[in-house]
Amino acid sequence: MPAPHSHAAADFARGAAFVRDAYLPIDQASIPLTDWGFLRSDAAYDVVTVWDGAFFRLDDHLQRFRASCAHFRLRLDRPDAAVAQVLEHCVRLSGLRRAYVEMIVTRGQPPWGSRDPRQAVNQFYAFAVPYVWIADEEQRTRGLHLQISGVTRIPSSSVDARAKNYHWHDLTSGLLGALDVGADTVVLGDGAGNVVEGPGFNVFAVGADGTIVTPAQGVLEGITRRTVIEIAQTLGLPLQQRALSAAALRSAREAFISSSAGGILPVTRVDGQPLGDGQPGPVTRRVLQAYWDWHADPRWCRRVDYTPSA
Amino acid sequence: MPAPHSHAAADFARGAAFVRDAYLPIDQASIPLTDWGFLRSDAAYDVVTVWDGAFFRLDDHLQRFRASCAHFRLRLDRPDAAVAQVLEHCVRLSGLRRAYVEMIVTRGQPPWGSRDPRQAVNQFYAFAVPYVWIADEEQRTRGLHLQISGVTRIPSSSVDARAKNYHWHDLTSGLLGALDVGADTVVLGDGAGNVVEGPGFNVFAVGADGTIVTPAQGVLEGITRRTVIEIAQTLGLPLQQRALSAAALRSAREAFISSSAGGILPVTRVDGQPLGDGQPGPVTRRVLQAYWDWHADPRWCRRVDYTPSA
Repeated sequence: MPAPHSHAAADFARGAAFVRDAYLPIDQASIPLTDWGFLRSDAAYDVVTVWDGAFFRLDDHLQRFRASCAHFRLRLDRPDAAVAQVLEHCVRLSGLRRAYVEMIVTRGQPPWGSRDPRQAVNQFYAFAVPYVWIADEEQRTRGLHLQISGVTRIPSSSVDARAKNYHWHDLTSGLLGALDVGADTVVLGDGAGNVVEGPGFNVFAVGADGTIVTPAQGVLEGITRRTVIEIAQTLGLPLQQRALSAAALRSAREAFISSSAGGILPVTRVDGQPLGDGQPGPVTRRVLQAYWDWHADPRWCRRVDYTPSA
Repeated sequence: MPAPHSHAAADFARGAAFVRDAYLPIDQASIPLTDWGFLRSDAAYDVVTVWDGAFFRLDDHLQRFRASCAHFRLRLDRPDAAVAQVLEHCVRLSGLRRAYVEMIVTRGQPPWGSRDPRQAVNQFYAFAVPYVWIADEEQRTRGLHLQISGVTRIPSSSVDARAKNYHWHDLTSGLLGALDVGADTVVLGDGAGNVVEGPGFNVFAVGADGTIVTPAQGVLEGITRRTVIEIAQTLGLPLQQRALSAAALRSAREAFISSSAGGILPVTRVDGQPLGDGQPGPVTRRVLQAYWDWHADPRWCRRVDYTPSA
C-alpha cells in the first residue's frame, strides 16, 4: 500500500481518508460536486469502530456493507479483505486507538448528459476519525432524555432501512424538534403508533415483565443491536423483536438505545417523563457492561497493526 | 466579483462551479467528504435553466429555493440578488447559451464530536453545466415509454416533497426497474393506487373528456408544472390538480411529463401499452409549443450578461 509521502504524520491526527486511491488528511478529503452520491444521495455506507486499538465486529460490518451496496445496485469493486486493508490503513495513519471508521460507495457520475445510473462508475471512499459519541459524558451518566417525534421514518416501501443509507432528512427534522424542546435526541415513528429508530441508533424498552423489546420492522438491523440480542441470549434475558408502541416505550420500566457511536446508552426520560425511578435501569446496566466486556473478547475483535511500514 | 485568474477560459467549457467563495471548472469542484450535505444528505437545492442566453423564471426558482432551505432549517446566507449574481457568473464563465444551473445549501459540519445540526455552518454551492435533457432526441420525438413503479415515493409525512431535496433512492430504484424492462423512465406511486412523480419531473394525463389532471399531493411543485398550469389557463384548457390513479394514467388519451430538464415531454406508452394512437397528443403538442414560446417572453426571461468583465 503506498505511503503518503507528501503529508506529515501530524496532518492525519484529526483523521485520515481514502479518496480516489489516495490517502489524505480528513480536512483535505472531498468528493466531486457532481458525484450522484451527493446530488442524489445515491450511496450506501457502513460504520465500524476501533476501541483500544481493535476493530469491533469488522466482518459483520463488511458483510452488511456489501449487502447495502447490492441492494442499491452499487458496485463494491474490491473484496472484503481489500476494504479492510484500506480501513486499517486509515486508522494506522491517524494513529487513533479509538476511532469511527466509515466506508462508502457512491454512484459516481454517468457520462455528461446521461441520466442512466447503470452508466456511472461507482466510487469507493473511506475515512477514520476520532470515536464519535451520540451523547456526551453527562448525558451518558444521567441517561438520555428521548423525545418521540411526530415525524414518520421513511418507510421501507420507499427506501429499505436495512440497507444503510444517507436519507436522514426525517431523522434530522425530528432531532431538531427534540433539541428545541430540551430533549437530547429523538426516536421516529412508523405512522401507526409504533416507534422505529432514531438518528443512528436502535431503541430497546424493558417492560413490566422484564422482557426487552426492540422494533423488528422499518429499522436498520444495527450490528450493536445484534450484539444486544446476543448479549441477552448469553445472559438469559428475555428479548423480543416486535412492534414497540410509543405508549409501551413511555410506560417502560427502563429503556436504552444502541449505536456504533457510543454502544449502549441508557434512556431515563421519554417525552419529559422519567422512566421508573429516573435512573439507568439494572437490565440496561447489565447489557452495557457486557457490551464493553465483549470489546476485549477475541471472538469480536481484530487488532489494528499500527506499524508505520505495515 | 473576483475573476478566476488561475484558469483558462477553456477550462470552464464543461461547466463552472462556485465552491467556498471561488469559481472553479466543474471538473475541479468538490465538497468536503465530511459535509453533512453528503453524509446525511442534509441539503436543499434548486435548478434553473438558461435557454438561448436567458434564465427562465429565475425569480420563481430563487423563491422556491429559499423556501426549501427554510423548511430544512438551512441558512441561505445571501439575498436573492446575490444568489442570482453567482449563478449568472457561473453561466458567464462557462459561456453556455443553454445551461442547467443548480444552487445548493448544505448543512456543512458541526464541530468535531457534536451531533447538533444547529452548530453547523451551512454552506452555499452553485454550478452551471450544459443543458440537461431527461430524454434524448429520439425519445422526445416518439414520446416517452413510462413505467409505473411498485416503489412508493417517500411520503410527505417523512420528507416534504415540496422542499426540493436529494433523497432519490426510491426514484433511482424505480428508474433502474423501468430501464430493466426497456422503458425510458418511471413514475412512482403513493402506495394507495395513485401515481405521484418521477425522477425530476411531474406527470400530467389528459382524460377522455379532455381535462388535464396532475397530482396535487406528495409531489414537488415544479416550476415547469406551474408553467403548464398557467399555459392551460391561458389557452383555456381544463386542468385539475387532484389525485391521479395509476389506472387513469394507463387509460389516458394522452400524457406528458414536465421538468426543467427538458420542458414538456410527451408520453406515448405506459407500462408497455400505447396511449391513444401511440403518438404525442394534440393537447401535449399545444402545451409543449407554448412552453417554448414563453421562453421568448420577457415576462419570464432574464438575459445573461456574457460580458467577460461583468
